[in-house]
Amino acid sequence: MKALCKTRPAPGADYIELPVPKPKADELLIKIHRTSICGSDVPIYNFTGWAGKRMKLPFVFGHELCGEVSACGSKTRGFAKGDFVSVESHIFCGLCYQCRNDQRHVCANLKILGIDCAGGFAEYAAVPARCAWKHSDDSLKDLGSVLEPLGNAVYAVLVEDIVSRTVLINGCGPQGLFAINIAKACGASRVIAAEVSPFRAKLAKKMGADAVLNPAEPDFLGRLRKAAGAEGVDVSVEMSGNPKGIELALKSVRNGGRFTAFGLPGARLELDYANDIVFKGIKIYGIAGLEIFRSWYKMESLLKSKAIDIRPVITHVFAMKDHKKAFETMTDKEKKCGKIILVP
Amino acid sequence: MKALCKTRPAPGADYIELPVPKPKADELLIKIHRTSICGSDVPIYNFTGWAGKRMKLPFVFGHELCGEVSACGSKTRGFAKGDFVSVESHIFCGLCYQCRNDQRHVCANLKILGIDCAGGFAEYAAVPARCAWKHSDDSLKDLGSVLEPLGNAVYAVLVEDIVSRTVLINGCGPQGLFAINIAKACGASRVIAAEVSPFRAKLAKKMGADAVLNPAEPDFLGRLRKAAGAEGVDVSVEMSGNPKGIELALKSVRNGGRFTAFGLPGARLELDYANDIVFKGIKIYGIAGLEIFRSWYKMESLLKSKAIDIRPVITHVFAMKDHKKAFETMTDKEKKCGKIILVP
Amino acid sequence: MKALCKTRPAPGADYIELPVPKPKADELLIKIHRTSICGSDVPIYNFTGWAGKRMKLPFVFGHELCGEVSACGSKTRGFAKGDFVSVESHIFCGLCYQCRNDQRHVCANLKILGIDCAGGFAEYAAVPARCAWKHSDDSLKDLGSVLEPLGNAVYAVLVEDIVSRTVLINGCGPQGLFAINIAKACGASRVIAAEVSPFRAKLAKKMGADAVLNPAEPDFLGRLRKAAGAEGVDVSVEMSGNPKGIELALKSVRNGGRFTAFGLPGARLELDYANDIVFKGIKIYGIAGLEIFRSWYKMESLLKSKAIDIRPVITHVFAMKDHKKAFETMTDKEKKCGKIILVP
Amino acid sequence: MKALCKTRPAPGADYIELPVPKPKADELLIKIHRTSICGSDVPIYNFTGWAGKRMKLPFVFGHELCGEVSACGSKTRGFAKGDFVSVESHIFCGLCYQCRNDQRHVCANLKILGIDCAGGFAEYAAVPARCAWKHSDDSLKDLGSVLEPLGNAVYAVLVEDIVSRTVLINGCGPQGLFAINIAKACGASRVIAAEVSPFRAKLAKKMGADAVLNPAEPDFLGRLRKAAGAEGVDVSVEMSGNPKGIELALKSVRNGGRFTAFGLPGARLELDYANDIVFKGIKIYGIAGLEIFRSWYKMESLLKSKAIDIRPVITHVFAMKDHKKAFETMTDKEKKCGKIILVP
Repeated sequence: MKALCKTRPAPGADYIELPVPKPKADELLIKIHRTSICGSDVPIYNFTGWAGKRMKLPFVFGHELCGEVSACGSKTRGFAKGDFVSVESHIFCGLCYQCRNDQRHVCANLKILGIDCAGGFAEYAAVPARCAWKHSDDSLKDLGSVLEPLGNAVYAVLVEDIVSRTVLINGCGPQGLFAINIAKACGASRVIAAEVSPFRAKLAKKMGADAVLNPAEPDFLGRLRKAAGAEGVDVSVEMSGNPKGIELALKSVRNGGRFTAFGLPGARLELDYANDIVFKGIKIYGIAGLEIFRSWYKMESLLKSKAIDIRPVITHVFAMKDHKKAFETMTDKEKKCGKIILVP
Repeated sequence: MKALCKTRPAPGADYIELPVPKPKADELLIKIHRTSICGSDVPIYNFTGWAGKRMKLPFVFGHELCGEVSACGSKTRGFAKGDFVSVESHIFCGLCYQCRNDQRHVCANLKILGIDCAGGFAEYAAVPARCAWKHSDDSLKDLGSVLEPLGNAVYAVLVEDIVSRTVLINGCGPQGLFAINIAKACGASRVIAAEVSPFRAKLAKKMGADAVLNPAEPDFLGRLRKAAGAEGVDVSVEMSGNPKGIELALKSVRNGGRFTAFGLPGARLELDYANDIVFKGIKIYGIAGLEIFRSWYKMESLLKSKAIDIRPVITHVFAMKDHKKAFETMTDKEKKCGKIILVP
Repeated sequence: MKALCKTRPAPGADYIELPVPKPKADELLIKIHRTSICGSDVPIYNFTGWAGKRMKLPFVFGHELCGEVSACGSKTRGFAKGDFVSVESHIFCGLCYQCRNDQRHVCANLKILGIDCAGGFAEYAAVPARCAWKHSDDSLKDLGSVLEPLGNAVYAVLVEDIVSRTVLINGCGPQGLFAINIAKACGASRVIAAEVSPFRAKLAKKMGADAVLNPAEPDFLGRLRKAAGAEGVDVSVEMSGNPKGIELALKSVRNGGRFTAFGLPGARLELDYANDIVFKGIKIYGIAGLEIFRSWYKMESLLKSKAIDIRPVITHVFAMKDHKKAFETMTDKEKKCGKIILVP
Repeated sequence: MKALCKTRPAPGADYIELPVPKPKADELLIKIHRTSICGSDVPIYNFTGWAGKRMKLPFVFGHELCGEVSACGSKTRGFAKGDFVSVESHIFCGLCYQCRNDQRHVCANLKILGIDCAGGFAEYAAVPARCAWKHSDDSLKDLGSVLEPLGNAVYAVLVEDIVSRTVLINGCGPQGLFAINIAKACGASRVIAAEVSPFRAKLAKKMGADAVLNPAEPDFLGRLRKAAGAEGVDVSVEMSGNPKGIELALKSVRNGGRFTAFGLPGARLELDYANDIVFKGIKIYGIAGLEIFRSWYKMESLLKSKAIDIRPVITHVFAMKDHKKAFETMTDKEKKCGKIILVP
């Protein structure tokens, strides 16, 4: 099969011939239909930051994928050849405290597909059956690889009741754009987006944002309060990972409000813990991943009932052999992209 | 002033001249703008059932009202002459356990406006300031008397997260119609309405119901499962009060689902407690009234953000002097009405 | 092996020689250490009521059990020969909506051990590995078969925060006795027990009840309010299944309080739905089974931290061959027993 | 009357003669029975840090107080001369969004007694009636001034279900000591305390800590995991305000666990936001104050049912004229004190 492989400790990857993986007893072999690029694939592709330290070469990466079940390991239950599945990238053990208490996404023995084991930028991938999500019909096949990041946004926005809340979505990458759409569909009062890139600001409007603010311009908090109310927002969903953005997003929350910590800064950061967390009595949710499979059911429902429509966020579809162009588009300085699909 | 007064222990009421009420120290005097008729006003008007026993004549009734503050009692805070207010009909004491634990609507010393004290079908009414809800602008003045019943529906539907849930709204009186609209606006997956009256079934569709079933036709549960899924609905909101309807609505809930007990049967009733409640592991919420003022904030937000539009539910506006026609319309056998407004 | 088998459609059972069961690929073979008798085993033993209709003879029953893993099916993970396990009797499928949304105990394809498939009153039993709970040490071996019913009580009492609540435990069978102890250990303010049998009333005191009331004596509600406060109790946990008891337990709840429906009446029953559920705005939890495995973790913690001590509830230990005496003790009219253990 | 007054912008205060305050229409005049010293009174007494900037001299401080109602303002309801009351120090407006949504402690117009208006270190104090808590009998009079800080601890520990949780209480000042006792009383599995002072470590043991660790000794996290389990604690309640302590307390939480931010650092601080908050998927509660009056009901219940016993935390009782000695004891380097009472 063809697979996108990190072969050298240097920027770039190679689309090369590799043997089709053999599924273990508890795995499914998936014939990949579509994949998509996550922000965390960029340091892997470029071999920078944590990726250079954690990944052992050679390595097939990619963790947003969907496709058809082509073979079922002997210990699997509930799947058959021909089933169309999306894949949960958080490989939970199923046996630890967290797994047996409905917190699989923070499993004590968590592995990430495409990082801790071979991933999905390929024609075939072997994945644990317990991480596969069977589609009930064909209507979401084109979105199959995007369900996993959509689920992140579902969890981040809906971790607490959003009805009648004013919401700040801080950062309009694909998950921020999803988040806007989700908040509007679930009864949020006003959704304010913060984004620097004009391309993405425009997409944010399209996804339903009531206002889009440029955080690079002066007096962000003043403008936010004008748009959302003098007290600040009820809910602030931080999806930029930018240290300054994180601080502004914290300060934007009203007394007793909610903050979602989702975006990942590259280093430690400084906060006004006493004033911005304790005295305001806010609640902070650290969100990595999604509730397995609660978030999956929610997103399937939101998509099928047409409460949300995320197709505008998919701005590019590339053949996997054109990966270089895809990653260039992804890392474009003006961020003229939403979600990017790779087809093997 | 003119007021609609029960003067005799017999059907009907009289629109007569009465002195303007004098607000007590903790009350506001309201110059009534609009009122509306609640289902519970019908037995009062007709002097039947509980009403005949509980009400002491002569009596001004009506508890759905809005208007302008015309005078403020000496102990009131936060209101001024000219403020436009809607009124919470559940007069809570503010001092009991429930009141100090965010359950004012089931206050241990609860009084109901227009039942336990003089009501609002009049040109003026005196109401406790703590039960008044100030409008922040003029945009909802025409809906002012309808906010209170809308709040009932808000509480009944949103008492637990509704996102991605299949929902049965059992009974499409005004609150059922509101409930449909609210569920759709807050991310419900499919909303199935049950209603006998073709007029109201049509309104249910208009308010967003994905399907409307006639419970009088055979095999309601079979048809419901066809519309909502083989397991039954996630959430069943019972708003008919019909004993048979209550039983069907209970049976319609999937294992582990939620049931809202809202409609009021006229007598004790028989249930399959073991099979329909215990074994299925469902949760039942008894709902009378609304969360004060949580539900008020929610409905204001849903209306102002245009997530919901309840104006189609208001099917008739009568001058208060035409009360006889209004109550006849209200009790029409074919139920060819939604919410009915009375203007003094 | 020896096993307690229903061989004839008549009262009684036979302790006979049967082949040791062969575990399927996803099962464990357990060498039984101890079992215990559940109330639902009585109609099976006597072949009355639902049991006569549902059970197909011959049949090994019993669903409260513990023992040592003696063999592991080929598809099992996480267990090894020699592990000591207790067993969850609710055999969930693991694949349905409820199972994938943390509601395994109301799985859409639920089977009950010892009812829908062969049970544990035997020297060996084969059970699905996903229903086995591994003990972390030897300290709870003597209680191993009692964990499952204890977990029912844990779920019933702790389904919502109990801190500072006044609690009625209605019916002091073994699970009621557990419930008293759990409520006290978790911060309940006052725990009132209701029980007719003097033997069990005494046990209720021993388990920590602040007061024990006899519901057969006049004015139960008056006496309850004297003991718990004029408003009624915050939480009423109904464990008797007695129709009259259910009604009194419902009426005992304060406005806005909580009711747990746990005990199983033998037939449909009549309630004052409008006054006791809707107007009071209470919340009702139907509880069958326990949260898998959330409740298991909770009970392990409560036992190991010695917050609860349930050993006094175990009043009898019989050899399994003395099953006749055990079931006679269990159905004694004066209810002079708590939990009864059977040792194969 | 006599009152402890900050008269000069320098360390110390004067116990001088002042006129008895005149209660406003919505206030009660309290004849003070007992007061106690809060950590935040120390910078006021010493006129350091924020206190030097915020306080306008002359000023009577102190916000932990109890006493007898000696006069009721004309607009007050529910109180009578002779009632014994404790006082909530968070003066909420009662009209803002937070106040009308059960978040009075983070009222948008919050004032703190003894900081933003005259306090209670005096023979008399005037306080808003809505902030007074009437005792139902005499049993808690000696603890009357301590209820307010006890309520902080109640809120901090019980903001989420604590049953079967392993808990770290980081810092054993009076509120940390209360917190230990509360956690044990409400079903926590193991409570580990962290404290440097041997005097307070001993008190921590007395209040029920299963282990007390000295965070100044090496490998705190290693020792904690030995005491609480390899994954870390389920719940970490940070009550020290020490920046290093905050970081360790964050790192002590298991994946998917809970952190309570209660202690106040004096300045901004640096955190490993990505690893300690986002990736671990934890929930953080900022806690300032207590739920009004939910926490008050809880603490009354816990005290009256004898589930908790906080009297050992009161280590010193001084006459108010001996304030100098009291504040010296409070700021003793070896922290040889728990809660300190001042009697006017």
